[in-house]
Amino acid sequence: MKFQDASIDEINKIMQEAWDAFQQFKDTPLSVRAALMRAIAKGLDAAGDALIQTAMQETNLPEGRLRNERARTMFQLTSYADACEAGEWLEARIDTAVPEKGDPDLRKMQVAVGPVVVFGASNFPFAYSTAGGDTATALAAGCPVIVKGHPAHAGTSQIVADIISAAVAEAGLPKGVFAHVHGAGFETGKALVTHPYTRAVGFTGSYGGGKALFDWANQRKTPIPVFAEMGSINPVFLFPDKLKESAKELAAQLAGSITLGTGQFCTNPGLILGVEGPELELFIKELAAAIEKINPSTMLHPGIAKAYGEKRGKALAQADVETVAVAAAAPAENQGVPTIASASAAVFLKNPVLHQEVFGPYSLVIRCKNVQEMYEAALHLEGQLTASLMATDQELTQYTGLVGTIQEMCGRIILNGVPTGVRVALSMQHGGPFPATTDCRFTSVGADGIKRFVRPLSFQSWSEHLLPQALRNSNPLHIWRTVNNKVTKDAI
Amino acid sequence: MKFQDASIDEINKIMQEAWDAFQQFKDTPLSVRAALMRAIAKGLDAAGDALIQTAMQETNLPEGRLRNERARTMFQLTSYADACEAGEWLEARIDTAVPEKGDPDLRKMQVAVGPVVVFGASNFPFAYSTAGGDTATALAAGCPVIVKGHPAHAGTSQIVADIISAAVAEAGLPKGVFAHVHGAGFETGKALVTHPYTRAVGFTGSYGGGKALFDWANQRKTPIPVFAEMGSINPVFLFPDKLKESAKELAAQLAGSITLGTGQFCTNPGLILGVEGPELELFIKELAAAIEKINPSTMLHPGIAKAYGEKRGKALAQADVETVAVAAAAPAENQGVPTIASASAAVFLKNPVLHQEVFGPYSLVIRCKNVQEMYEAALHLEGQLTASLMATDQELTQYTGLVGTIQEMCGRIILNGVPTGVRVALSMQHGGPFPATTDCRFTSVGADGIKRFVRPLSFQSWSEHLLPQALRNSNPLHIWRTVNNKVTKDAI
Repeated sequence: MKFQDASIDEINKIMQEAWDAFQQFKDTPLSVRAALMRAIAKGLDAAGDALIQTAMQETNLPEGRLRNERARTMFQLTSYADACEAGEWLEARIDTAVPEKGDPDLRKMQVAVGPVVVFGASNFPFAYSTAGGDTATALAAGCPVIVKGHPAHAGTSQIVADIISAAVAEAGLPKGVFAHVHGAGFETGKALVTHPYTRAVGFTGSYGGGKALFDWANQRKTPIPVFAEMGSINPVFLFPDKLKESAKELAAQLAGSITLGTGQFCTNPGLILGVEGPELELFIKELAAAIEKINPSTMLHPGIAKAYGEKRGKALAQADVETVAVAAAAPAENQGVPTIASASAAVFLKNPVLHQEVFGPYSLVIRCKNVQEMYEAALHLEGQLTASLMATDQELTQYTGLVGTIQEMCGRIILNGVPTGVRVALSMQHGGPFPATTDCRFTSVGADGIKRFVRPLSFQSWSEHLLPQALRNSNPLHIWRTVNNKVTKDAI
Repeated sequence: MKFQDASIDEINKIMQEAWDAFQQFKDTPLSVRAALMRAIAKGLDAAGDALIQTAMQETNLPEGRLRNERARTMFQLTSYADACEAGEWLEARIDTAVPEKGDPDLRKMQVAVGPVVVFGASNFPFAYSTAGGDTATALAAGCPVIVKGHPAHAGTSQIVADIISAAVAEAGLPKGVFAHVHGAGFETGKALVTHPYTRAVGFTGSYGGGKALFDWANQRKTPIPVFAEMGSINPVFLFPDKLKESAKELAAQLAGSITLGTGQFCTNPGLILGVEGPELELFIKELAAAIEKINPSTMLHPGIAKAYGEKRGKALAQADVETVAVAAAAPAENQGVPTIASASAAVFLKNPVLHQEVFGPYSLVIRCKNVQEMYEAALHLEGQLTASLMATDQELTQYTGLVGTIQEMCGRIILNGVPTGVRVALSMQHGGPFPATTDCRFTSVGADGIKRFVRPLSFQSWSEHLLPQALRNSNPLHIWRTVNNKVTKDAI
């Protein structure tokens, strides 16, 4: 499908509508926002096979995967709607007046920041695109959303946008609560991020894209936060005793995780570090055998397939990098070929090219001389979404320095498991130190994602009946609050 | 007192020590951090008169004010220590495994970000300087602190730094948990902010200073957050009915707030907006009479007095600005002379000079034709720490658009009270939209300030006995946690 890029005039009109809608939407009851989110989920379901078919055509993703992803997207919308109504994210704090000390009555809660611009991910046409996590959490916060549809699935994005707009209209909310624009070039994105009414940005994509948005946002007269997820190689550390116990099982587990979704998840493991020895050789042999048997599969779009071919080629061409395994079946056009390479830690430490993400079904095994060298390699890794430790409990206790360093580099640390499979839950941190994301203090998965789009506002000596519901004495929303330093649901 | 600026070599050494100390300090029990904070408070008290005398000499602040400020600083340290131990800021979230859905056990908590560089405020030599709010909250978070002492009270800063270092040693913690450097030029600050081991920055001062730090931090290879408080004119909106009720009382109240501390607080009201008419004229007359009676007083240092003189002069020299009142007593050298000016809303809207902070005992009264024009002026104001409404409940209900706009611009909204007097409490938001601060999502006053120096980390499928205490099944810290979406103190 072909769509026209939005013009600057259209963007100005849309942002004005978003700003006007914000004045009303920010004060809508939580129940209204939650109902809107649930209606969008229902709309996605009601869009039935037609939506799946469009997404299949545009993304080359298999039907089963897309059906699961739609279900995940619906779960995000409904579970974040529940969290929106539960109201813990409001962080209501009340300190009543203490006249003898001259302390006034003071009450604080989180309020919406304003219009949020969302750039969806190409690899998740539902769950991290038009009605994805960023949109859901921004609506929960009370922020209007402007989505720039991903050009690689513009038709899917348009169908989903229409579902959201219909739900907004059905709820009797102003049209400006949601807008959708197309834009294949960077100009549309830049105009949205630099527009004075834009208050925050959500993005999932490349480092280059995310960093450009981050810089534009910081160079504004009034800087705004950008929550950009920009890539990660998700290192896996194979500790010696664990490797001795289960080299074969680890190889099978990792072969699956490396190639899951043709390696097009943000959490596929692109780096595996182990200590030289017969166990590591067995692991590599088993991993190679498994990878060789996996058929190449079609990538999201020709651009991604081309980038994978180039980055894979560049990595394999580096000095002292050995190609360990390539899928036996020949790849068709635009297919990603599962590949494992290997290098010594010394080579890895010297060559920054090997630290870069190769987005696709590729992973690099690093042979370390000993755990100390694995530690050195860890000290040189950049920020990551995840890090996985294949280790015995005894090893975790023994190598505290290394374990501490691994915790420093990531947002989620996994013991004896693979990084793919991102649970949608309050306890999820999906966001790691730069350059994995621009702001590791926030998550893009789980209801805590709402916190990206709010700021605290204190009301001093305010009239009780004019306070927002969350801060009234009677606690009409029945939410948890901190009253005079005590966590309670009690009325005052 | 004269001190040597730290050299780059010294800064590198200090940052290495801070980084090394961080590896241990981040995992210290909350009780140890809290004990350290309480010991620092005790040390401030034990420093007795000598500390007050030094501060008086360096800052020209009166003894009573400095004694109160020391007490406030001690209260910050001890109340934040209580909050540190209560552990709500850890935001512990646990979702137990759901094997039938393939969901792993996932547990999240806030962890320290790393070494924090603090630039103290000249106007609060205790409460927002060396052992002030930034230092206290960073220590609570588990972050080592490096303070660049303010050159205007370098001797006071050195005494306080020695108290902190002694408390760190006494607690058996590594020396690198706290460091103090001197630096009169910008090079020291730049070296600290751009050092690779620095993970966050706290600052209180001018827009120029804060914005430079913000830009340096964002241009790093790995950007870091800067929490800079940069100034605010703290507008006060006089609604017509309220003004009719109590013009005289409001004038007295505001005269006190404008000149409190020689107008050297971040929250002194620098802008007052009212609707033309006999009530506003009465208010101005009473305000002028009160201001004329207030004696000029000595400002913090000659640089601030000079800047006040220049900015005041520039504001008064603007076209169609009327000087309404000047203190009757002649000012001595380095004294700030209480001053009130006035202008029409039309003049104010056209002239950006009048929107700038004049740091000192100065305020500008804006005569609006009607509430609609007051609304227009509000729409053109920049971000503010506070905004105050002098209004009846009926007026708050009547002018919802204006009230909503005022909420948008500030971090704390005050009803029928003055902005000076910042309560140290969990419900305090001290931080407003840019350019009042660089990040209005965080506060620099109250225990929520701890949140500036942490980030979430998820542990997936981690061994129970190796988890941090906050996340263990038995809840040994007895903290509030969210377990499977329920807020509870129960064990699992």
